[in-house]
Amino acid sequence: MVVVIQCKDKVGLVADIASVMARFGVNILTMKEYVDINEGMFFARLVIEPFNDIVVLQNALQQALPSDALVKVNPEPEKKIVVLVTKEYHCLSDILIRNHFKTLGATVEAVIGNYADLANICERFDVPFYEISHEGKDKSTFEHEIKKRLANHKFDYMVLAKFMRILSPDFVASYPYQIINIHHSFLPAFIGASPYKRAFHRGVKLIGATAHFVTDDLDEGPIIVQKTIPVDHTYSVSDMVRAGKEIETSALVKALHFVFEDKVFVFNNKTVVFE
Amino acid sequence: MVVVIQCKDKVGLVADIASVMARFGVNILTMKEYVDINEGMFFARLVIEPFNDIVVLQNALQQALPSDALVKVNPEPEKKIVVLVTKEYHCLSDILIRNHFKTLGATVEAVIGNYADLANICERFDVPFYEISHEGKDKSTFEHEIKKRLANHKFDYMVLAKFMRILSPDFVASYPYQIINIHHSFLPAFIGASPYKRAFHRGVKLIGATAHFVTDDLDEGPIIVQKTIPVDHTYSVSDMVRAGKEIETSALVKALHFVFEDKVFVFNNKTVVFE
Amino acid sequence: MVVVIQCKDKVGLVADIASVMARFGVNILTMKEYVDINEGMFFARLVIEPFNDIVVLQNALQQALPSDALVKVNPEPEKKIVVLVTKEYHCLSDILIRNHFKTLGATVEAVIGNYADLANICERFDVPFYEISHEGKDKSTFEHEIKKRLANHKFDYMVLAKFMRILSPDFVASYPYQIINIHHSFLPAFIGASPYKRAFHRGVKLIGATAHFVTDDLDEGPIIVQKTIPVDHTYSVSDMVRAGKEIETSALVKALHFVFEDKVFVFNNKTVVFE
Amino acid sequence: MVVVIQCKDKVGLVADIASVMARFGVNILTMKEYVDINEGMFFARLVIEPFNDIVVLQNALQQALPSDALVKVNPEPEKKIVVLVTKEYHCLSDILIRNHFKTLGATVEAVIGNYADLANICERFDVPFYEISHEGKDKSTFEHEIKKRLANHKFDYMVLAKFMRILSPDFVASYPYQIINIHHSFLPAFIGASPYKRAFHRGVKLIGATAHFVTDDLDEGPIIVQKTIPVDHTYSVSDMVRAGKEIETSALVKALHFVFEDKVFVFNNKTVVFE
Repeated sequence: MVVVIQCKDKVGLVADIASVMARFGVNILTMKEYVDINEGMFFARLVIEPFNDIVVLQNALQQALPSDALVKVNPEPEKKIVVLVTKEYHCLSDILIRNHFKTLGATVEAVIGNYADLANICERFDVPFYEISHEGKDKSTFEHEIKKRLANHKFDYMVLAKFMRILSPDFVASYPYQIINIHHSFLPAFIGASPYKRAFHRGVKLIGATAHFVTDDLDEGPIIVQKTIPVDHTYSVSDMVRAGKEIETSALVKALHFVFEDKVFVFNNKTVVFE
Repeated sequence: MVVVIQCKDKVGLVADIASVMARFGVNILTMKEYVDINEGMFFARLVIEPFNDIVVLQNALQQALPSDALVKVNPEPEKKIVVLVTKEYHCLSDILIRNHFKTLGATVEAVIGNYADLANICERFDVPFYEISHEGKDKSTFEHEIKKRLANHKFDYMVLAKFMRILSPDFVASYPYQIINIHHSFLPAFIGASPYKRAFHRGVKLIGATAHFVTDDLDEGPIIVQKTIPVDHTYSVSDMVRAGKEIETSALVKALHFVFEDKVFVFNNKTVVFE
Repeated sequence: MVVVIQCKDKVGLVADIASVMARFGVNILTMKEYVDINEGMFFARLVIEPFNDIVVLQNALQQALPSDALVKVNPEPEKKIVVLVTKEYHCLSDILIRNHFKTLGATVEAVIGNYADLANICERFDVPFYEISHEGKDKSTFEHEIKKRLANHKFDYMVLAKFMRILSPDFVASYPYQIINIHHSFLPAFIGASPYKRAFHRGVKLIGATAHFVTDDLDEGPIIVQKTIPVDHTYSVSDMVRAGKEIETSALVKALHFVFEDKVFVFNNKTVVFE
Repeated sequence: MVVVIQCKDKVGLVADIASVMARFGVNILTMKEYVDINEGMFFARLVIEPFNDIVVLQNALQQALPSDALVKVNPEPEKKIVVLVTKEYHCLSDILIRNHFKTLGATVEAVIGNYADLANICERFDVPFYEISHEGKDKSTFEHEIKKRLANHKFDYMVLAKFMRILSPDFVASYPYQIINIHHSFLPAFIGASPYKRAFHRGVKLIGATAHFVTDDLDEGPIIVQKTIPVDHTYSVSDMVRAGKEIETSALVKALHFVFEDKVFVFNNKTVVFE
């Protein structure tokens, strides 16, 4: 059972947490904590032995800790997600496979695509796919349709698995730190469109992928995972695209695992990740 | 200031440690702890704000923890080492450079070589070099001479920086978990002599290096750091040797940093490393 | 269009090849060649502009080169494969996804499992799955059934995508350098069964995966691709298994791409891979 | 013996080169060539058996190839370099060590520092160090002094081993593609000053280093080698600086080896590197 805590730092926090656990006879299996000294913030993630009364433990911790403390005992153990896609199959397929074999750490409730290309693969895995085209619509109409479609689905996170549209601040604000994107570059290099093309022209020797939470600023949200792989002069743009897909897929799924296991904290546009 | 603790696991250990700290008003800056569930062992490393009375804190912790607990408050902050070498310069030079610029985390007290090849580089850095040849001597005589020479030097660790001789169990027993070796393979692949030659003949696509504590069994001691780098069909044995030097150097220095910062625990022939 | 050449080395081979190309007005887009000086062997892979008369070019090259030369102009451009599996889904799924989206570089003709676990995923992708149990059969009967089942399928390579049975020398001899296996360790470390369990007990800091051609000797065939990823003291055996799946999948698919693109040559139980 | 060739691509170039070699009975040990199809450029690097008459071979190749061809037979086998530094020791020390043990592939003729900090380490290796302060001088005066001081030294390359000053276009133009810099970021991320500070504030999960040729545009020259290493939320700016030094050192020395072995070609602000 997981417990996550985030609050202003002060002397004795670990003792306070640990003595609540000791009081209830709960064994701490692992505890990772981190103090951001510059920011004066405290973050902790505990794995404890199962304990029946979650509410009682939650309240006891809340009482023992500063009033600003965000405490979650056993945060949603059965995460649900929706996935937004365009045409590229690699990230979605990887998610669908893990979803199918129950190793994703979350359940895919639905997939939304602004093209129909990926309907078939979803169908093969019995996952609902909704085509919502952006064509001939302004952004707010398009996003309104997405929201309306999702109204029937409960979900904890929205995953942009190569969804090649920029979402409006309004839309993003509806899902604070719940939208996870995979960007096909080593951010902050090549923010925005066509990163592989620009990487090619710059003659880089590594290409990258970045999984991050989405915020108002394009490609500026808190980074969760980054990966790079070597390329060389023989790589055309399309070779880079092809090679990049491998790390886009693996960076995204790694980030999702961290998030779904409640290992990721966000503060000040950065993440604390207890690997 | 660092505190390291190793003991049998039981409920409430973190609380016990943390409340000792709280009692003395000591702020815990970072705390990493790990419970090996199979072995029922608890390991912790804390960085705390400086506290004047080390002995008092040590005693308080010792009293609060199980009687088997190994507790070290502020373990030797100024480590001293000796280095044993044969002819290859790369690991030793890296150590000497960092020693010279005071970024090694320890002081090199002396270097012993069974050949004179590396005397000159030591001299350039004003580090004592002693040539002790193994030739025409049985192992115990050779090792006796090394020990005798070291009798005048206080040191916390002995680093085998490409020392191409096997030490006797007797010698090793004199320095329990104090001898650190760099082996030029990804152990347990290619235990023993000529790993690159054997890697070449096997046609591997990666070569490795392993930094480990030395125990009685050749190349079987607790592993601290391992690294690999790609090779391909164009690599001759000597190309592998050359490429391997880079990771031998970096794996060894990484392991040394971990050890010198008291981040490494040994239990059951394995290491816990709080990176 | 690809041309691959393998023969004893001698002065002027490149000139001989290049002048054949020049004679037919064929532009060489890329040429990679390698001389194994110890073995006196020459390997080359050319990408040339499409040329109509493959047989003519093949004959011209054969005539221009030493009589022992293996020359293939435009080797089977549409590879077909069969896949053998047991129960683990990760490598097979990755192959099925790429097969489905036509980015594998080969077509999966059929999948054979010694359990029925993976029948369903094959069915979802319209790929024939045949269950052939090994239970209650001696190896030769079991293998005979596999061969019989495959008699109706034409294929260039057999992929062991976590097929947890050892094949007999007889069976292997029927498909020389056509069987590709993924072994879940960094060979030659942890040859044979339970590599992750042994890796755990050894306390390694990296785990690996090896894609190789299958030969008579267990896990001793020519290596095509190897990968490693970091692990630490917090990894249980099952954590290693889980982490290892990621590199098993990626090492296998990388090896398959190399093989399907005719970039891999075998000589003396080693591979030459023109990446 | 090395031969490098760079020219406009056309059909039959490999044949032309190879037949010149065959005519002189020169065996080609390895040949790497690359055609940049977009740019219509041909690049080749050959390792041939030693041949006495370099001028004859050079002329024969020049005659056999297009008139624009840059051909170098046995390009300067004994490279000489100068190194420019400020205060950081890690890159310079690595260069000095390799220089001392004759594994750098070039000879360090002199080191110039705009502070005296690294005079001592140069002295220890008997390498001339010249302090040329930039303080109280305009850039052209400062650079003039450097040039004047170097007038007595013959060198093939100038290495900026953490030389924290921007050189003027005039200065750079005097040494076209002869100045190699190590930049402490994964370019084009964090161009310019204080990359680690900016990486820290962005919350990246990898930091990088880039070795590149210096051109007029700051940090925009042709990239030779890039490396990245993982960081996490626990890294302060100074932790990043410390970790970054390891890859700055290794990226720079790797780039230097490529350059000194004549494996690097520059075209259109990008490099072709025959690893």
